[in-house]
Amino acid sequence: MNKYVAEFIGTFFLVLTVICAVNSDMAPAFHPIAIGTMLIGMIFAAGHISAAHFNPTVTLCLWMRGTCATKDIAGYVIAQLLASVIAAYVGGNILGKIPTEAATNMDILPAMVAETLGTFALVWVILNVATTKINAGNSFYGLAIGFTVTGCAYILGGYGSYGCFNPAVAIATLINGLNTVANIGPIIIANIIGGVLAVIAFKATYTE
Amino acid sequence: MNKYVAEFIGTFFLVLTVICAVNSDMAPAFHPIAIGTMLIGMIFAAGHISAAHFNPTVTLCLWMRGTCATKDIAGYVIAQLLASVIAAYVGGNILGKIPTEAATNMDILPAMVAETLGTFALVWVILNVATTKINAGNSFYGLAIGFTVTGCAYILGGYGSYGCFNPAVAIATLINGLNTVANIGPIIIANIIGGVLAVIAFKATYTE
Amino acid sequence: MNKYVAEFIGTFFLVLTVICAVNSDMAPAFHPIAIGTMLIGMIFAAGHISAAHFNPTVTLCLWMRGTCATKDIAGYVIAQLLASVIAAYVGGNILGKIPTEAATNMDILPAMVAETLGTFALVWVILNVATTKINAGNSFYGLAIGFTVTGCAYILGGYGSYGCFNPAVAIATLINGLNTVANIGPIIIANIIGGVLAVIAFKATYTE
Amino acid sequence: MNKYVAEFIGTFFLVLTVICAVNSDMAPAFHPIAIGTMLIGMIFAAGHISAAHFNPTVTLCLWMRGTCATKDIAGYVIAQLLASVIAAYVGGNILGKIPTEAATNMDILPAMVAETLGTFALVWVILNVATTKINAGNSFYGLAIGFTVTGCAYILGGYGSYGCFNPAVAIATLINGLNTVANIGPIIIANIIGGVLAVIAFKATYTE
Repeated sequence: MNKYVAEFIGTFFLVLTVICAVNSDMAPAFHPIAIGTMLIGMIFAAGHISAAHFNPTVTLCLWMRGTCATKDIAGYVIAQLLASVIAAYVGGNILGKIPTEAATNMDILPAMVAETLGTFALVWVILNVATTKINAGNSFYGLAIGFTVTGCAYILGGYGSYGCFNPAVAIATLINGLNTVANIGPIIIANIIGGVLAVIAFKATYTE
Repeated sequence: MNKYVAEFIGTFFLVLTVICAVNSDMAPAFHPIAIGTMLIGMIFAAGHISAAHFNPTVTLCLWMRGTCATKDIAGYVIAQLLASVIAAYVGGNILGKIPTEAATNMDILPAMVAETLGTFALVWVILNVATTKINAGNSFYGLAIGFTVTGCAYILGGYGSYGCFNPAVAIATLINGLNTVANIGPIIIANIIGGVLAVIAFKATYTE
Repeated sequence: MNKYVAEFIGTFFLVLTVICAVNSDMAPAFHPIAIGTMLIGMIFAAGHISAAHFNPTVTLCLWMRGTCATKDIAGYVIAQLLASVIAAYVGGNILGKIPTEAATNMDILPAMVAETLGTFALVWVILNVATTKINAGNSFYGLAIGFTVTGCAYILGGYGSYGCFNPAVAIATLINGLNTVANIGPIIIANIIGGVLAVIAFKATYTE
Repeated sequence: MNKYVAEFIGTFFLVLTVICAVNSDMAPAFHPIAIGTMLIGMIFAAGHISAAHFNPTVTLCLWMRGTCATKDIAGYVIAQLLASVIAAYVGGNILGKIPTEAATNMDILPAMVAETLGTFALVWVILNVATTKINAGNSFYGLAIGFTVTGCAYILGGYGSYGCFNPAVAIATLINGLNTVANIGPIIIANIIGGVLAVIAFKATYTE
């Protein structure tokens, strides 16, 4: 249960950051900094409790990697999605605002490529910095992961999908009217493709 | 006494950064970077001396956690508030300027939600990275805490309270005319609520 | 083979970041942040696999240093160049766009000085943080290297060469029409000069 | 001799960053990021060789602290000043340009307060993160120091002195016509006052 609480808290603040950043007057060029720094704090806070997934795709990939128990998957994903919905509400209705412009359907190919690449990068980094014996006990894992998201958000966030790399984030953007229903499916599919490819790349290169 | 001097120095530079940033021509989007980076330096400098609270709410929460002695509370809080008043004076009268526009009363609900959430995030991160056995001796605690403040300042700093997450900062903004008397009470109450909730969440999830 | 895959992935994301940043609407002042943060993530992910060169000049310099085997050089450089070409294609044709303005020839002297200095700084930092016994097992190597590139990109990226400090990046900028054929030779020569000078400085100051 | 070479390289890139940033079209709000990130890389690269002073005031303060030998002072300061002069030349004459506007005399009181506070913060952080037994072997010292300079540059860099916190930087700004002769004396005096006060604060709070 501790793990699920930690997943809830971390995912809540991650999603809240995305929603509040997009819904605010903040220049988009600062969104990746806000998201990355918040994520760094939340990962280091929850790493020792839940391994700080904050992302259903990461939970899937760590299960494939063998560092997330099958019995934990449901609890992790429920906690992540619950956090996403509540963060979407708080960010959109209490702190932010529902955008008045209707979301537009994204251009599928570049958006899916961007989401696939971003999730690949994220999962590749997580698997290597947080699940390898040689890196056990390092003090950099949260920085590596958070800064990767910052970098990916800068270059892959501008293709109409908001650079989710995370189905929990994608759902929150849908709730807040930032993404269309038509966008969400391809985003989540791309997130899973990217994550699974990263697991394959990791397994191909990992030697204990 | 060493602890109180370290608290004074760290709180002074934290508060000075907030005051000088707000009172300067710096674009607001850079304030969270200035505040977070200064805080990272000051936390790493004082962590081994005083545990680098720099914040009466943090002192309260670490006392509830059991890592701040009852006899230290008064000294810590006095040092923090003294630092805040002096930093407000230096930032407002020597380096900066007293703003000419009168502060306006904030919209209570979103401002209190923002202050509660920001203080929750801050204290949640501190408790996990700086008071758990499993994370003892890590090299990331100052980065986790400072970057959390950066992230929170980005998304929770725009609701009329200046994103204090810290009664010592709140008082300095009052002294400099950035906040009204009416704002300060709710800000401090929200800071305490957020911090106490984080202690509860920490205690619910912590297992030695 | 693991090493070459890791080099491919890391170089791909590094080059993709440069190409997508330059080809996007992102204000140039954020390019060094995007590049540095992505590089930090990729270095920490691949450090334990391939030592995270991502740069033919770095491979050359680490071979001179004695931490890259002669038999690995070809594989490393081929992986890096292949990643560069594919990243240039993805960044320019799928995610980005080929710029419509023709690239201009750079002013040779300042551009070569800038490329030499940037590569010197990069290799000097790598050799000291990642190949010395006294720094073995540190948690800062990726941050030191990534942030050095951020700093160098800020001050040395504006002389017409795009601040490559890396022949693999230079070739990708050529493919995307950001650099001219005339620019590439001097850039690569400057990269090699800077790197070799850093090896000399390292060897002159290193004592086990 | 190794130490002096490392001091030369680190100070050269630190000063070059200041000069190139100020002499370029880069918006001033990015200067502290450029300077801090470069400094982080250079500190981690040279920390194990020379303790990475890069600043005559730091050399003085570490000598007072007892971690810099008397016989090393001259070599350190000469290396730092030589690096400063050469970086000023390269930054001003090869990469940058001599500014056409004449420098103006700064308002002495706020500028000296700013320089004193910035140098105090810098030296306070250095002494605590890099010279205490309890923090020996940490992986955060370069980040703590570099980010402190970033924070200080943001809030203390706008008072006409360019936020030097370092006589070697001050002299380079004089050479490049960014500071007047009248400014340099007070800046250096303020740097020394701030540094010495930090040594006193450190000695008052340090217990082995």
